[in-house]
Order: sequence, then C-alpha cells, then structure tokens
Amino acid sequence: MNWWETDFLAVRENRLFIAGRDAVGLAERHGTPLYVYGKGRILERYGRLEDAMARHSPLEARICYAMKANPHRGILRLLRRRGAWIDAVSPGEVETALQAGFPAERILFTGTSVSRADLRSVFAVAGLTVNIDAAEQLDLMSEVKREFPARTVRVSVRWNPGIGRGINARVITAGKRSSDGTPIKFGVEGKKVLGVFARARKLGFRPVGLHQHLGSGWVREDAPMVRAAVDRMVRKARELERAGFRLEFLDFGGGFGPRYLRTRSVFPVEDHIAYLSRAVAGAGLGVKALALEPGKYLVGDAGVLLLGVEYIKESYGNIFACVDGGTFNTVPRPAIYPSAHHVIVNAGRVDAAAKARVTVAGNICETGDVFGRERLMPLPASGDVLAVLGAGAYCRSMASRFNLRGIPREVLI
Amino acid sequence: MNWWETDFLAVRENRLFIAGRDAVGLAERHGTPLYVYGKGRILERYGRLEDAMARHSPLEARICYAMKANPHRGILRLLRRRGAWIDAVSPGEVETALQAGFPAERILFTGTSVSRADLRSVFAVAGLTVNIDAAEQLDLMSEVKREFPARTVRVSVRWNPGIGRGINARVITAGKRSSDGTPIKFGVEGKKVLGVFARARKLGFRPVGLHQHLGSGWVREDAPMVRAAVDRMVRKARELERAGFRLEFLDFGGGFGPRYLRTRSVFPVEDHIAYLSRAVAGAGLGVKALALEPGKYLVGDAGVLLLGVEYIKESYGNIFACVDGGTFNTVPRPAIYPSAHHVIVNAGRVDAAAKARVTVAGNICETGDVFGRERLMPLPASGDVLAVLGAGAYCRSMASRFNLRGIPREVLI
Repeated sequence: MNWWETDFLAVRENRLFIAGRDAVGLAERHGTPLYVYGKGRILERYGRLEDAMARHSPLEARICYAMKANPHRGILRLLRRRGAWIDAVSPGEVETALQAGFPAERILFTGTSVSRADLRSVFAVAGLTVNIDAAEQLDLMSEVKREFPARTVRVSVRWNPGIGRGINARVITAGKRSSDGTPIKFGVEGKKVLGVFARARKLGFRPVGLHQHLGSGWVREDAPMVRAAVDRMVRKARELERAGFRLEFLDFGGGFGPRYLRTRSVFPVEDHIAYLSRAVAGAGLGVKALALEPGKYLVGDAGVLLLGVEYIKESYGNIFACVDGGTFNTVPRPAIYPSAHHVIVNAGRVDAAAKARVTVAGNICETGDVFGRERLMPLPASGDVLAVLGAGAYCRSMASRFNLRGIPREVLI
Repeated sequence: MNWWETDFLAVRENRLFIAGRDAVGLAERHGTPLYVYGKGRILERYGRLEDAMARHSPLEARICYAMKANPHRGILRLLRRRGAWIDAVSPGEVETALQAGFPAERILFTGTSVSRADLRSVFAVAGLTVNIDAAEQLDLMSEVKREFPARTVRVSVRWNPGIGRGINARVITAGKRSSDGTPIKFGVEGKKVLGVFARARKLGFRPVGLHQHLGSGWVREDAPMVRAAVDRMVRKARELERAGFRLEFLDFGGGFGPRYLRTRSVFPVEDHIAYLSRAVAGAGLGVKALALEPGKYLVGDAGVLLLGVEYIKESYGNIFACVDGGTFNTVPRPAIYPSAHHVIVNAGRVDAAAKARVTVAGNICETGDVFGRERLMPLPASGDVLAVLGAGAYCRSMASRFNLRGIPREVLI
C-alpha cells in the first residue's frame, strides 16, 4: 500500500481509484484538466475532529471551516449540513457562505487590513461575529457602526500571542516576525488585548470571544511550541475574565493539515485537542464553546487534479511529461511556497519496474510551471492521465487565469 | 528628481502625478484599489524600440507584444493601431488578440505543452504562425492537421540554444537547467532543430522562422551571455538556410525590461538591437524580418496600482500601513518571485523629513501578503493613497481571486 492511500484514494490492479471510481474513467467522462473532490473523505475528517472534541471536552465544539482553502459551493453545503461553522476572511466569503445556507450566527469574520467597505458589508449581516485584528481597527469600526445604530455587533479579538509556528516563512502568522524576517501583520499585541476589549464594549460592540492562529503546516516537532501558545491563550482568557469580560468562546485557529510528503511527520491533532481542552478546563474558565478553524485538514487530501498527458518531450537529457493544464491555473502552491510538494501518480499505471526521472510540465509560459521536478515514475505516454494529489486546499482558490488559460472544472463525488 | 520619474510618473509639489494627473485625484474619482496605465509611456517605449530597429537594420521589424504581460483590451488596441505584432501563448490569448483587431498574420502562437484542443483552435485561424516548442509536438500537429486538409499552416521553431539568462531561477527559459536546477521545458534542443524543420515540411507545414527566448529581467551584466546566444541563433539560421530552408524571420524573443530597483543595472537594449542586426547582416542571411517580443519593456513601468490606507497598525514594534487591496489579487509578483520589488510612494506626500519603517500590509489572509517590507517612508495616515510602481506587467495578468477578494478595475489614460 502506498503511504498516501486513504478511504478517498486507493490503488487496485495498478490503477488509481478515487472514491471508488476509476480515475481514468473520470477523466474520460469529464475531460481534463479536472479537479475531483471526495465528500466521504471530507466528512471522515470532520467526524474525526468532532469526535476528538466531544471526547475531550464537555464544551460546545465549533468546527469553523476556513473556507479560503476551498470555497466550492458543494463542499460548503456539505459542511453546513454536517453542522460546521465558517471562518470567513472577506465580504465575498461571507456572502458565499450565506448563499450556501450558513446562518450568520455560525460565521466568524476575521479580516485583516479591513476597509470601511468591508465593515459596512459585514455589519449589515445580523448575528455574525467580527473578529478584530488590530487595536487601530476600532476607529473604523466605530465610524461605520454609526450607520447601524440599532445593531448589536458581536466581536471577538484575534490576538497575536507573540509566538508562531508554520512549515515555512509564508505561513507563520503569529509572533513578531516570520522566519524570513517579514513583520507579522496579524492580530493584536498581547499587552493591548484588554484595552481592545474595553474600548470595543465602550463603543457599543459586544465582546464574546478570543482567537489566535499561529500558522499552517504543523508537523510533529511543532507540538511543544503550539502547547506553549495554548497556555498563553488560556492565561490571556483568564486575565479577560478577571477584568469582567465573559467570554462565550475561545478559538484556537487552524494549523494542522494533511500529509503532503511521506518524509514529513504528522502533527498529533487529537493530542492537541486533548491538551487545549484540559488547559481550558484546568483554568476554570467560564467559556461555553471551543472553536477550531481547519481548512487544509478537512479538504487538503480530499482533492485530486487530473491532467492529460499530451506528449513526452526529451530535451538536453531531460524528460518532460507535457500535460494539458498549468500550475498557475490549477495547483499554484509549488510556484508560491518553496516547500510545497504534491505527489503525482499515473492513474492508469501507478507502478512499473522500469522508471524514469520525469518533470511534469504545465502549459504556462513560465519555467517554474512544473507540477513536479524529475519525479521517479513509470515513463508516461501520450494519452495517459496523471493525478496530482493533495489538490483539495489552496489550489482552485489560489488559481489565476494567467496566460488567459481557463481554470479547470470541479466535480464533488 | 527620483530615479523612477519618467514621462509617465512625476513629482510636483511633493505629490505624485500620473500622466499629468494628480494620483490622489484619480484615486478619489475611480476608487481604490485601482490600476492606472499610461498610453503615452507605452507608445514612447514602442517608439524607442522601433527607432532602434530602424536605425540598425534595413530589415522589416516585428515588435511582437508579449500579451501575457498585460492583456488589457485598451493596451492591445493601442499597440495594434501602432503596428505591433502579438506573441500569444494560449488559444485564449489568440482569441483576445483577434477581438482587439489584430490580423491573424500578425500573431505568433508560442505554446508549451500544447494540447490537441489548443492546436485545433489555432489551426482554425488562417494566416497565424505556430511556433513549435518540441520535436514531439509534431505528432499531435500532424494528427490535428488532418482536420484542416486545405489549410497551409505557417510554422516556426522555438529552439533552445543551450544557454539561458534571467534575473532569477523562475524566469530563465533556455539552457539545460535553470539556476535552481529546474529542467528547462522550453524549446527544441539544438541538434534536433534541422530535423524538426524537415519533418514539419514533410508533414505539409510551411516553415518560415526561427525563434529563441532566453529569459527575463536582464541586467547590464547579462549582455555577454545574451550576445553569445545571438551568435548561436545566427549560426543555426545559417545551417537551416544551407539545408534549403528559406527563413522569412528570426525572432530573438524578449528579456529586457524596465528598471524596478534603483540599485539594479539596466540592460542596454539598443546595443542589443545593434548587435543582433549586425550579426544577421554579417552572416548574409536571406531573412526578410527581425522580431522581438517585449512585454515588460513596453508596459512594466507604464502601470501603477493605487491603494487606499485604511489604518496604521502597530504591533510588537512593527508598523503597518493597512491597505484596501491584497497582493495576490493585484501585484502577486513579490509572492511568487523572491527577487521582485516594487517601489511604493505616498501619492499625497512623496517625501518628508521624518520617516518610519513601514510594512505595507494587504487584506489577504497570508503572511506574505505585504506589498513592501519595512520601507523607509513618511508615516502614512488613514485616508492616504499609496502608489505601487511597476504594476503594468505580470500584475493584473497573474492576479487571482484568492480569499474571494475582487480584482481591481483598470484605467488607461
């Protein structure tokens, strides 16, 4: 069995099956390039989180889907029916979530560099909670709030606990600076949090929660740092309670994802949930609910991109499988994150004794437009179907129409 | 005078003027974020190339606009009226160029990993020239050609001269490997070129030209390597002529761009044109036309992105100007190319004695979503307008709707 096989992806008689269906057959039926997402896998992941939360804490569990990972309408409806909440980061996301049937009460809006126009849009949605990203944002909020004199706006504070954690510099979202020196723009500095709560209340907002998000792509080795941040969050919540703020929820954000690489260790999600549940209980906090914001965890390995091989090219000793899609329009992660890696499988011939080093070249006019570089695989042939795994999160949602190429269609099965 | 001032951008009384108009006024009139492009600057650049080509060679000059840099309809129409040709890399680009009024005869289609569907689209356009990127592509071409029995399809060959040149690993497009080891997917290997010409003719295509493109972002220091590649191209053309192929044109591609950084040297474009003109004349080639493929050179510094400052944020000692756009949706280059840098100017207060280190933070939920990191500038205030320079090329065309944020509107003045 290959390390990436799951209830979603399996190999039978050397062919790839996606949610029980022959991948080549799916490609023939719908055409390539094609995104295929699996309902079953998403629900399995959701259930696993829900179970772990129920097992470790008596508090209400809010699993807020970070929809920026993949705002596909069918996935949103699936998760809404299953009871998920939404982590939305723009008015466009809020609007899309509402259209997918999410009640406003289950939407947490976490903007950054929010504009007056953004605030106007989200204040207009009664019941939604606005997560405050900066002390200075309160001036704008106060100004826009005047247009909604009768509205009680629920707010929470995204604070920056001073430590962050992520697989690369681009996805460390807390602390003073990322690992490449980039100043971290997110959240309210620790010493300002109490003041933001006080001022928000004074301005007529209703503070209901505290939120943090450390980064993404955690591996096993990140656990100690993540625990330290959980401890800080609990201490901060206690400080707020002592100052007279009754917190309805604590939101520990996301950060844990699926495995993209065999050699990468896996973050122990259930241990994390157990730890934070114990920490909250141990501190005797009066909070009613715990929230998490999984994006990649729910959909990352529940998606595959199918590509058709047009021809095999040899040039200066390099071998290329030339495919009918381009990374920028489909799976742009390798072009943006140096550490991003997607397993590529020949759907009709997963393994063979003879292998070659093949670079899977997209149809965009950019040297970096390769899905995988010198991958050891059975030499593909014209007409073969290649499957790029781990294409469920931050693929379609980050895709552009660069080179005026189209963005592939998506099927949810 | 600031090093970046041109006929397009000027500072008067400490305010930024774009094509003679007050930048803050443009922002007020059209709203932010906003792309502003300048017709005059584009035409000035075009004229400069045209003059240099006319001065140094008696041959017909074909300035093929690499429209992937910016396929704005107004820019396309402007260049079409001025006599430009088009370098198109997808059927979508060909279609857009035709809609902008370009005759098919002035379109060169240079695909990579082309599909049968791509070829079907471009063979259907009578008069267009198809640039062959791989020896192995001929099988597909031959197959699709059968659907167009009466059509004479003009073809040229994009060869890989074995050496490439570019400002970073992502934009080196010739040679065996890029500087980060990525195998170069583009072009036909030197020893195969003659065979591709022979087979193309045998299959009923009409070979008319030879093409190469080495990479992008050349600086002064790249000139010797670029000249060596010009020499190789001329030798290859002579070899083809001796083998009985009459070449109508030689296309030397692009690679020379505007200046994005004060500290970066400028590639001597006119010297380059003089050199390649002399090389072609000296070799006694029978070609009728010389072609270049400028993209960034024509439009790169003819565009500006205007952003509104929503608020100034301070966190853990870092200062952020929080603006109403996000890099991924507007100027994604810094997120994709580590070497990309865009000058940022406060349009209403270009300079001041007191300066601060300001990180210009976008509204996308990503740590890397900063337009500029710790830039020394007069501390902006809420309501200010910041101008991101060099936003004419590979900005709108690479922008996505990540976070379900919109892509800004564009004005061409």
